[in-house]
Amino acid sequence: MKLDCFNTPEPGAVKLTDQVLSVRVEKCLTSTIPAAIKKACESGRIDALDLKNQSVKREYFYDSDTAKILEGIAYALKIRPDAELLQTFQSWVDKIAACQQPDGYLNSYISGAAPEDRWKHLNNLHELYCAGHLIEAAVAGKELPGGEKLLAAVCRYADYIDSVFGLEAGKRRGWPGHEEIELALVKLYRATGNERYLRLASYFIDDRGTEPCVFPSDEWNFEGLKVIRQADKPVREQVDAHGHAVRAVYLYTGMAETACENGDTELRQQCEKLFRSICSKRMYITGGIGSTFYYEAFTRDYDLTNSSLMYAESCAAMGLVQLALRLFNLTGKAEYLEVLETAVYNGVLSGISLAGNTFFYSNYLEVDSNSSFYNFGAAERQPWFSCPCCPTSFSRFLPQLGSFIYSTAPGHLYVNMFAANQAELQVGELPVKLEISGNYPYDGNISIILQSSGDFTLHLRIPQWCKNSSVKLNGQACDPVIRRSWQAGDVIDIELDMPVEVLFANQQVTSNLGRVALKRGPLVYALEEIDQSCPVRELLIVKDQKFELKPAPGLPAGTVAICGKACREILPSDELYFSAQAQYEATTFCAVPYALWGNRTPGNMCVWNRYK
Amino acid sequence: MKLDCFNTPEPGAVKLTDQVLSVRVEKCLTSTIPAAIKKACESGRIDALDLKNQSVKREYFYDSDTAKILEGIAYALKIRPDAELLQTFQSWVDKIAACQQPDGYLNSYISGAAPEDRWKHLNNLHELYCAGHLIEAAVAGKELPGGEKLLAAVCRYADYIDSVFGLEAGKRRGWPGHEEIELALVKLYRATGNERYLRLASYFIDDRGTEPCVFPSDEWNFEGLKVIRQADKPVREQVDAHGHAVRAVYLYTGMAETACENGDTELRQQCEKLFRSICSKRMYITGGIGSTFYYEAFTRDYDLTNSSLMYAESCAAMGLVQLALRLFNLTGKAEYLEVLETAVYNGVLSGISLAGNTFFYSNYLEVDSNSSFYNFGAAERQPWFSCPCCPTSFSRFLPQLGSFIYSTAPGHLYVNMFAANQAELQVGELPVKLEISGNYPYDGNISIILQSSGDFTLHLRIPQWCKNSSVKLNGQACDPVIRRSWQAGDVIDIELDMPVEVLFANQQVTSNLGRVALKRGPLVYALEEIDQSCPVRELLIVKDQKFELKPAPGLPAGTVAICGKACREILPSDELYFSAQAQYEATTFCAVPYALWGNRTPGNMCVWNRYK
Repeated sequence: MKLDCFNTPEPGAVKLTDQVLSVRVEKCLTSTIPAAIKKACESGRIDALDLKNQSVKREYFYDSDTAKILEGIAYALKIRPDAELLQTFQSWVDKIAACQQPDGYLNSYISGAAPEDRWKHLNNLHELYCAGHLIEAAVAGKELPGGEKLLAAVCRYADYIDSVFGLEAGKRRGWPGHEEIELALVKLYRATGNERYLRLASYFIDDRGTEPCVFPSDEWNFEGLKVIRQADKPVREQVDAHGHAVRAVYLYTGMAETACENGDTELRQQCEKLFRSICSKRMYITGGIGSTFYYEAFTRDYDLTNSSLMYAESCAAMGLVQLALRLFNLTGKAEYLEVLETAVYNGVLSGISLAGNTFFYSNYLEVDSNSSFYNFGAAERQPWFSCPCCPTSFSRFLPQLGSFIYSTAPGHLYVNMFAANQAELQVGELPVKLEISGNYPYDGNISIILQSSGDFTLHLRIPQWCKNSSVKLNGQACDPVIRRSWQAGDVIDIELDMPVEVLFANQQVTSNLGRVALKRGPLVYALEEIDQSCPVRELLIVKDQKFELKPAPGLPAGTVAICGKACREILPSDELYFSAQAQYEATTFCAVPYALWGNRTPGNMCVWNRYK
Repeated sequence: MKLDCFNTPEPGAVKLTDQVLSVRVEKCLTSTIPAAIKKACESGRIDALDLKNQSVKREYFYDSDTAKILEGIAYALKIRPDAELLQTFQSWVDKIAACQQPDGYLNSYISGAAPEDRWKHLNNLHELYCAGHLIEAAVAGKELPGGEKLLAAVCRYADYIDSVFGLEAGKRRGWPGHEEIELALVKLYRATGNERYLRLASYFIDDRGTEPCVFPSDEWNFEGLKVIRQADKPVREQVDAHGHAVRAVYLYTGMAETACENGDTELRQQCEKLFRSICSKRMYITGGIGSTFYYEAFTRDYDLTNSSLMYAESCAAMGLVQLALRLFNLTGKAEYLEVLETAVYNGVLSGISLAGNTFFYSNYLEVDSNSSFYNFGAAERQPWFSCPCCPTSFSRFLPQLGSFIYSTAPGHLYVNMFAANQAELQVGELPVKLEISGNYPYDGNISIILQSSGDFTLHLRIPQWCKNSSVKLNGQACDPVIRRSWQAGDVIDIELDMPVEVLFANQQVTSNLGRVALKRGPLVYALEEIDQSCPVRELLIVKDQKFELKPAPGLPAGTVAICGKACREILPSDELYFSAQAQYEATTFCAVPYALWGNRTPGNMCVWNRYK
């Protein structure tokens, strides 16, 4: 029997009106997605779908980019109709469908450039990964005109994949080298009701990591590569989150989804355990994950270096949000929303410029003039990468931001975050209209006005960072969980105390010894060189003081900066190592939200600063 | 015309009698080399030389290990005759010679396992690298009984290589993917007088990095791989030390050697420039180099992380010593000896246990319980590695330690370091006998007694770390440079003030912000968990204090520990990030020489500790 699980609203059901998230959604629609479409065309990704075209270059990951943009287009069209965008959707769908082989196989790289390699290099060639993204795009666009064609194509493809892989006679064992198809197949099962897809997802998950390994054992570092691909042990026996961070969270999301549909409480608990491994020992304060450029991977507990070869890939933070949302919907535990909100407001949004058209591949917590490997060697966000997974991930992620605000179940409405919005939701069978207003996350005063009537329980999440809060219903103090017969016009006023927090890291995070980070509400702050009177690296923040909140210069109106007293350490030498008397002088500092750094004059930045 | 260049004595000419280096040489002879011989045999490296043996596994780097051990054996035999060891030398020489092809080619992997790959994969297959090590072994053993056979074999091989590579008609262009043969060919030129070998070395150096690149441009990250192999630009145009650290210092050593023999002052200056790039911006305080596990490479200026994915490969530190020695001998600038001495006493010796039979591949400056990738995942030094470059490098490096003490030129004798020893040297044509006594590097009082007579200038190096020193000749104060007609029995007394230094790193090394390292004389100190009353990570060293010197518990007699006041920071939370009031309490610390860490109960260690 299926596990109980909350629902997440469709993109378009929640219209953001806040100062932070709504801007990002709008830029996604007007800048990120159009730019991604242009780049996909210019780079030959669309031409590559035409198998008769022999002159175009093909790469094994091209179809995943195309599919991710297509998924983003589908969400964008749900938010706001756009005839030209719909035409792009339909034209891409036609080209994808035309690329499909008679037996259902669908991959422009293999069919166009290396037909002899079909299913030969599961560990590297991303066929099942690309298939997963095509499926996600098809499910996202299934109600759009022309969407049925893509859905039919991916069903044929999934049927074919199911005829190839499995433990049954006549099939072969196989797992994706890059997980993704598992969660996609559960979406396809939900969209079609065809249990075959759920069974296939369950096969990919439960066979993974069993012996013998399906990946080639003659690779140089076979044991290491199994770890990187989460194939070192059966997934139910894995004790910590490891390997390639994006793959890990995609896998765990697929596990959560199959656990839900299969009524598999053991697998759900295993997902929770792996999630705890991340958020209690392997996650940056921003919600970034994956401590190293090397295989874009998790390393070990408390290894959370702020620069050098750190990683915190934008895509991994987005994947962590999706995982956290599934786990909240499956368990109702607010701890998952803490991580979701942290990752959304910090580790995800840092990856994209305010203009919506340039990206950080990896999200450093400290950038000094000589930081190495920083954003693949570039000192600023870039419009595109040879493997452009972040632009295409943002294209499909940002239109979903509004959906994260609420979860629903029959008789229950959960407010996960307080970003201002207007929403039209389904609480079970009951249509519910409501509006949230206020300046969250810069201000803790929030109002919710019901715009429709009906019986249900409203669950307001009081964030863990908030130590003092009050909730009033129509002026009367009440609990954050309110069961009642709601009337249109009911007003809830919430006050979340939102002081500046001075946070330490666990001392086992040795790179943060002697350093603190500033946080206010869900926002992690950073010191950017442009806001200081001396190099960031010379500053020590005075720990015990009353901080001032000020408008952040040169950032969008409403952005709150944290300012205060600091101490400057002056070491009078340019040598690499030297003996000296350090000089100290009193000065000030000004910190801005981490997610907004790098949107003004380029310069150094630091989240974990020394304290005094 | 050849550039002026000092000479370095042969192994065996300087008998170390000090408490630090002599122990390491002795252990090398009685433990490191015998263990390496055993492992080389057990692993099939010697059997692999028998091309008729089809059952043995062959690897493309096997011959380099065999050759490096053989070079070590040759030096060991110069230090102390040993009939059994000589027999091993001769038997290995016979097997190597028997592996040689009729045309002179000599590589057990290619000839035995992949003849079709000869010279096909210069970027990866290490043929020229292995050739270089065979040549170095042959030059080292050329005076031993049987050594002439190996010398003849490598001359035939080098003649053949010279017939293949070059710019002349009938030859092909090519460069080693791993530099080494350049410096070896200059040694072979000096051993034989055959200018062909010098010309070939010069070709490899001057063609390197020119267009078109000889490495395959279809590799995934072609530009990056050129950087890793120092083939991104002609070597004379390279502006900083970059790429794989071992390859870099081997290349620069080859450049210094060819500059010397070709009278090429421009190339010598380029070596000096690249060396400055290392020691002024890219070198750990221990003399370790290569900041990242990723390609075992340099990264960028001031990127000197202490843990996470740092590297500081043992072999790279040994390579840096060889480079520094060449540059001192070529320029007479004592700055090179500063680096040499630092690297020898810290970043090199940390790589090998006091017992001489286990090794750190990479030399971390901070090890916490969860340090990642630490010594290839092992918490302690290991006896061998799948690529055992460090055990074999130590086998050939440690017997040379005595040689580093002196440099000579006609009429000049340079005392580079003050480790106690008895030496029989050639100063030009003049045989010179002398003895250095004292407890250096633990004590700054040194005596030198001349045991023969003659005219020459004695140059005593007063280390840069020493701010107060005195030199007395037969009781009379004098300069550290003494030209005179020496008499047997002349006594020089040197006093080097050796206080504990509290060193800062340049603030651009952001991982060391708020941290200091302790150094005394040439020795960098580290805090090991076993010597503290609380976890190392919780300790702050009180910066301004009078430190105490004590015997280091559990380490060899005479080892000096630095002890003093410290402050313990207690953060009462196990969470990953939290708000708290830190508690502080007064305590003490005890630091031991970094090179000796990890020789007692395994535990955490830190060189750069916080200060108060």
